[in-house]
Amino acid sequence: MSEHVGSGTALLLVAHGSRREASNDEVRAVAQKLAALAGERFSQVDAAFLELAEPSIPDGIARCCERGAQRVLVLPYFLSAGRHVVTDIPSDVDQGRTRCPEVAVELCGYLGGSEAMPELLLELAAKAG
Amino acid sequence: MSEHVGSGTALLLVAHGSRREASNDEVRAVAQKLAALAGERFSQVDAAFLELAEPSIPDGIARCCERGAQRVLVLPYFLSAGRHVVTDIPSDVDQGRTRCPEVAVELCGYLGGSEAMPELLLELAAKAG
Repeated sequence: MSEHVGSGTALLLVAHGSRREASNDEVRAVAQKLAALAGERFSQVDAAFLELAEPSIPDGIARCCERGAQRVLVLPYFLSAGRHVVTDIPSDVDQGRTRCPEVAVELCGYLGGSEAMPELLLELAAKAG
Repeated sequence: MSEHVGSGTALLLVAHGSRREASNDEVRAVAQKLAALAGERFSQVDAAFLELAEPSIPDGIARCCERGAQRVLVLPYFLSAGRHVVTDIPSDVDQGRTRCPEVAVELCGYLGGSEAMPELLLELAAKAG
């Protein structure tokens, strides 16, 4: 099996979900930009939600598998390592694994823990200057 | 007045705030990393919170002014352009302006709207590969 991210790999961007549908659409738009930027690196890029919006994380993982992914990377679009990141998302990912036993489902680091975050924030601040 | 971010400029990273103090500390840690990365670019870098944690946004702005800032950049550490970003933070920033009438208080774009976000997410995903 290839060690690098390959064309049989799906990326699932996982957000909290909101009663405000525009916020959910904003996450879906980020996933679309990710897909455009990634080019051939992923076979598909989708969004899924912990609660309040569809698809759920297990449904999102299952959908990737149905479309032929051999591997699914789950990327938490969360800023803090609270209960959702530490407990709820891993539990949902386990449910997804149960539904797709022949697919490798891997959990990436969460957004807020990214070492590149301070640099991105500095760039945002610079735009105000 | 200088057009670029100068040494009399303070940066205030504004997060929602959480009952879980570790999440608030995580925001404060991001602000510290920002300060280290920014070097001389800002006279100070602090965190403030919309609710559930201290300092509040108006208090955070006032604190920057008390320490001599001539300009305060307020940077929303939020992922979606919901009510907090569109209404609540601007209202708090206005309160801060009222308390520091001689200081320029400017609101930066919010994190989730950053054009660099998809690239950062791709880097996070690549680390799983």
